[in-house]
Amino acid sequence: MTFDKITMDHGSGGKLTLELIENIFKANAGLDSAILGDIAFTTDSHSITPLFFRGGDIGKLSVSGTMNDLLCVGAKPMYLSSAFIMEEGFLISDLKKIVQSMLSEAKSANVEIVCGDTKVIESNKGFYVNTSAIGKIIRPIDGSKIKEGDKIIATGNIGEHGFAILNERENLQLTSHLASDCAELTGLILPIIESDLEIHWMRDPTRGGLAMCLNELCYKRDFGVEVFEELVPISQEVLSISEMLGIEPYYSANEGKMVIVVPPKDASKILDLLHKHPLGKNASLIGEITKDHPQKVLLNLSYGTKRLLSMPIVEKMPRIC
Amino acid sequence: MTFDKITMDHGSGGKLTLELIENIFKANAGLDSAILGDIAFTTDSHSITPLFFRGGDIGKLSVSGTMNDLLCVGAKPMYLSSAFIMEEGFLISDLKKIVQSMLSEAKSANVEIVCGDTKVIESNKGFYVNTSAIGKIIRPIDGSKIKEGDKIIATGNIGEHGFAILNERENLQLTSHLASDCAELTGLILPIIESDLEIHWMRDPTRGGLAMCLNELCYKRDFGVEVFEELVPISQEVLSISEMLGIEPYYSANEGKMVIVVPPKDASKILDLLHKHPLGKNASLIGEITKDHPQKVLLNLSYGTKRLLSMPIVEKMPRIC
Repeated sequence: MTFDKITMDHGSGGKLTLELIENIFKANAGLDSAILGDIAFTTDSHSITPLFFRGGDIGKLSVSGTMNDLLCVGAKPMYLSSAFIMEEGFLISDLKKIVQSMLSEAKSANVEIVCGDTKVIESNKGFYVNTSAIGKIIRPIDGSKIKEGDKIIATGNIGEHGFAILNERENLQLTSHLASDCAELTGLILPIIESDLEIHWMRDPTRGGLAMCLNELCYKRDFGVEVFEELVPISQEVLSISEMLGIEPYYSANEGKMVIVVPPKDASKILDLLHKHPLGKNASLIGEITKDHPQKVLLNLSYGTKRLLSMPIVEKMPRIC
Repeated sequence: MTFDKITMDHGSGGKLTLELIENIFKANAGLDSAILGDIAFTTDSHSITPLFFRGGDIGKLSVSGTMNDLLCVGAKPMYLSSAFIMEEGFLISDLKKIVQSMLSEAKSANVEIVCGDTKVIESNKGFYVNTSAIGKIIRPIDGSKIKEGDKIIATGNIGEHGFAILNERENLQLTSHLASDCAELTGLILPIIESDLEIHWMRDPTRGGLAMCLNELCYKRDFGVEVFEELVPISQEVLSISEMLGIEPYYSANEGKMVIVVPPKDASKILDLLHKHPLGKNASLIGEITKDHPQKVLLNLSYGTKRLLSMPIVEKMPRIC
């Protein structure tokens, strides 16, 4: 598809975002962080509506997203920057809450906010946060070692962030309990990176959800992904809202989960490690790498058939991060 | 002053910006980049209107500002990130122009754009770029060695960016030739950092102009600054628009200049080096460090009197970067 104007779908994190990055920025969207010798470098801008939501706010979200991007490439988070673009009239009490969330999440990741920037824009133009971060590479994880038969682990229940935001933003009042899973995962993931267990690939399934994440895993590669519906951990709350809205949980964003590809020999050890941490208690082996259908993600349904879990091109949930 | 809402003046780069950073972010606004062992780290968000202007665009501006911030602390620019927040309906042809400017400016600084992010927001909410960057510290320049009698150098004509933007944005049509000085200064400044000449402090005089920069130089320090009107390089174009608008050129932003504090013994050698580069041909010794009036910047006027060049609290030129 060609466009002459930016559409909401260019920001959905799906196929159009990928193509925009490849075509305009001539960049490889393959890794969440750049691996630069012994350091990792990553950046994220955040434009979520509403700014405050059940389970977090734009401050918590921005720090956790950026920390998780560093972890994805096998890095230990070290330093964080924060840059604010604020509309005139923005409440300083709200700014303080957001900054407090950022400091608290940074503390959890054991990183320091070392530099920042503030700009003010006209009223009603919005509030945006950019966080960039530097990590120390413990071992580079770049997807080059992925093999047929490798196991795919999800560290917990999927789909919570996207549906929680949609529920609040659109005042759907479909559920009163659903909260974003927004969390930085250093405590859960760093011990695995620092262990001697093999990790072949890691990605936080944010925009576009688990479906986008698994499609990125095999994007332009010589293998595909097999995933099993009955093994994917999903809460009852998410299943309900998913059915009511007619949007599959696979396409709903997560902000506190990781998808990990590991060799079969280490899969159960890694699951054991994950289960020991509160954020990994629902970790589950959800599928595997196959050479049978390169570049395709197939979902094995409970009743024995398979269907394509396609890369989302457009999505119904923009501005969820 | 206390506020309960963000005002345009919080983003002017003047005293209110400084206080916001100190009060809310509990951070030291003293350095443009963080010095982290042998690396420097910096971040900038950009919200300029108009996006395209004589002398540059938001792409060139964002890269040059970030590169210059690294140079300020004695670092060689190495890696750059770019994160875009784009309103729905933004022209892809404009995006391409902006990205091209960024690539071209990055090439000039000999750095690579290694990671990025894109988000889409509702139409009419604006277009924003964040650039963050990592540099390699050649020698840390942190202001700790500033002494009485140190000389202050400006690397070229001041005030051009601020007035150029104001002229275009407000359709003042006061001048047809004035262009932003927007430029990354690696070629000009890195040879000095890599030389054995002493540098005690360096800062690019952006928001709030030369006046803010010199006030930051002596902010909460035990020395003040003496600057000489007749030595400050200002073009005829800037003088004219300055008189017409009643805004002093000292308060107008620069985006391709550096203010450098050096010991007297090295001042003329550094000026010689600067003069050899096209971007430094108007470099001039403009003043010195004094213990006579700590924390104050005094401007020596051509006709023999002195007056305070105060820290701008509010300013008439928001959103110029």
